[in-house]
Amino acid sequence: MKRRDFLGTAGAGALLTGGVLSGCGQESTPEKAASAAPEETIEWKMVTTWPKNFPGLGTGANNLARLIGEMSGGRLKVKVYGAKELVPPFEVFDAVSSGTAEMGHGAAYYWKGKSEAAQFFAAVPFGMTAQEMNAWLYYGGGMELWEEVYAPFGVVPAAAGNSGLQMGGWFNKEINGVADLQGLKMRIPGLGGEVLKRAGGTPVNLPGGEIFTSLQSGTIDATEWVGPYNDLAFGLYKAAQYYYYPGWHEPGTTIECMYNRQAFEALPADLQSIVSSACRVANADMLAEYTARNNTALQTLVNEHNVDVREFPRPVLDKLRTISEEVVAEIAAQDALSAKVYESYQTFRKQVVAWHDISERTYLNVRGG
Amino acid sequence: MKRRDFLGTAGAGALLTGGVLSGCGQESTPEKAASAAPEETIEWKMVTTWPKNFPGLGTGANNLARLIGEMSGGRLKVKVYGAKELVPPFEVFDAVSSGTAEMGHGAAYYWKGKSEAAQFFAAVPFGMTAQEMNAWLYYGGGMELWEEVYAPFGVVPAAAGNSGLQMGGWFNKEINGVADLQGLKMRIPGLGGEVLKRAGGTPVNLPGGEIFTSLQSGTIDATEWVGPYNDLAFGLYKAAQYYYYPGWHEPGTTIECMYNRQAFEALPADLQSIVSSACRVANADMLAEYTARNNTALQTLVNEHNVDVREFPRPVLDKLRTISEEVVAEIAAQDALSAKVYESYQTFRKQVVAWHDISERTYLNVRGG
Repeated sequence: MKRRDFLGTAGAGALLTGGVLSGCGQESTPEKAASAAPEETIEWKMVTTWPKNFPGLGTGANNLARLIGEMSGGRLKVKVYGAKELVPPFEVFDAVSSGTAEMGHGAAYYWKGKSEAAQFFAAVPFGMTAQEMNAWLYYGGGMELWEEVYAPFGVVPAAAGNSGLQMGGWFNKEINGVADLQGLKMRIPGLGGEVLKRAGGTPVNLPGGEIFTSLQSGTIDATEWVGPYNDLAFGLYKAAQYYYYPGWHEPGTTIECMYNRQAFEALPADLQSIVSSACRVANADMLAEYTARNNTALQTLVNEHNVDVREFPRPVLDKLRTISEEVVAEIAAQDALSAKVYESYQTFRKQVVAWHDISERTYLNVRGG
Repeated sequence: MKRRDFLGTAGAGALLTGGVLSGCGQESTPEKAASAAPEETIEWKMVTTWPKNFPGLGTGANNLARLIGEMSGGRLKVKVYGAKELVPPFEVFDAVSSGTAEMGHGAAYYWKGKSEAAQFFAAVPFGMTAQEMNAWLYYGGGMELWEEVYAPFGVVPAAAGNSGLQMGGWFNKEINGVADLQGLKMRIPGLGGEVLKRAGGTPVNLPGGEIFTSLQSGTIDATEWVGPYNDLAFGLYKAAQYYYYPGWHEPGTTIECMYNRQAFEALPADLQSIVSSACRVANADMLAEYTARNNTALQTLVNEHNVDVREFPRPVLDKLRTISEEVVAEIAAQDALSAKVYESYQTFRKQVVAWHDISERTYLNVRGG
């Protein structure tokens, strides 16, 4: 999913309705009523790594800002800036760290330059799903570690969204076995790209705006993106023959909101609680949105656009998994903090796999269509 | 999971630490600071169907109340009452409807006496998982239908927790085939009980406090409860030989918070938003808690108590699924509103199964241990 922040076209203007607070049976605006008399209005800037209003991710940032405004009765107003509007997407972390913006919205794997350990808080190939990530973050020590990773920069992290399980990507070459990965030119950044490289492929990093053309012209053989909801909007089905699953490289990507520590600590306790809680709402809400919209979009892709949906052959997934384990272990070996995060993540993953093997996994296999 | 509200012993005093707001890097209490000058303090009562402080469920109600207090800077104080403290557990809905309490905490299947349709908003045998339920509720029209079901009673519903996938239960008889369901005396209330009955079993309804003794003495052959986290605390491993999975009858039970409509509408807009959002936080938080604690408890059950964990044979699950479909369809046939909810639920379920077949399900099957 990485680096889609360069994207400047798809989904612009597609501001979603519904979303956070849908179904609450009320329309509440800060202006409507507020029994608390605001002593002052605080204004915050939120810089984001996404194009303004990008479906799911950018609109998730909008929802979060709106919710903070609603809950605070207008006492805390958060203005959202799309990528490049205030700072370039990859400078979001620094902007929050320095206080140029009080708040940032992105994904932790963008900040591996600050700490390799950051990647564990976004997506790990063959790692935990959305539900498992949240269990680790909130009840398995994950949040405390994430705070430790960002602390030297004066930044406080929060989970603020999740894409759910992604798709494997769009391909113009059939993948029938491990040999088909040899020489495969695929736009797949980050850890997934490193894994593909070691499997014999050629990972390519392209700005979002060049992906479609590169795929259509044959400059690349394949690309990963997100899942049906975003991929349909991006029109990738027009440029590729096969749509492979599952998204082994991003099995439940956590989206983050982070705040400048000084700005956050200067807030009164109720506004701190509102900001933290709004992130919790946004985290769960985005997963619900992706789950619902992916399933609708998948029907459209299959029924209206005749997309050829295929599963990666098991030997291919086995190979990618083995390499993924090596790559992730190497990250962990780079420094003490990464090792500490890896240890916590892997221990929790192992146990939750045992639990989900007899719960979610078995159930999904037996429940019928 | 039903009727555990009669329980008066297990887990009392086990008030959990962590939970909502854990990992937010702050301690905030209403007293600490609040830039908004409270014009008045509103006091609400929350009646619950759970024993006070019951792990996960009762503590989830406590977390929710505390969060409302924090976010409102103490302007809205919610006092939580355990089952029987103010009203009996099965009078919670009526208490909220009449305004005896402004808020209630339970699960919608308790209110099937008000509307059969209510059951779709808690748990449906072979139905949707927690993640799918949230997608349906917030982005698939589910919340609007739930509001419609409760509207005649002046009650507004919110999802405020989820147990995740439950276990099939504790058995002193091996289940090797469909024939073993014949005459099986099992404590399993609600829809699951009706399904068991049609499969030849004898569903028994027992208050929580009698389950352990009944199972130990052989009065019943089996009981369902929740999952490892609650079941370990309840000591059921001491009274049964086999622990079966999966929990086909409750694949992701939604816990509800509901409010008296008049009381809710009398709140200023910011407090309405705070109450609704606190429910959203609690909804996701409880699932994270169960996911994390179930996986820890499962290790304890297996490694320290030598619990014999077994999977229901596939023909048994196939039989139960077929009957479940009949039972659920019969509910839908009882009245127009139930039919409308069933139609929405089933349509969404069918589509999300297709999406999760190529995402969550495939991934859980291939990711390795």
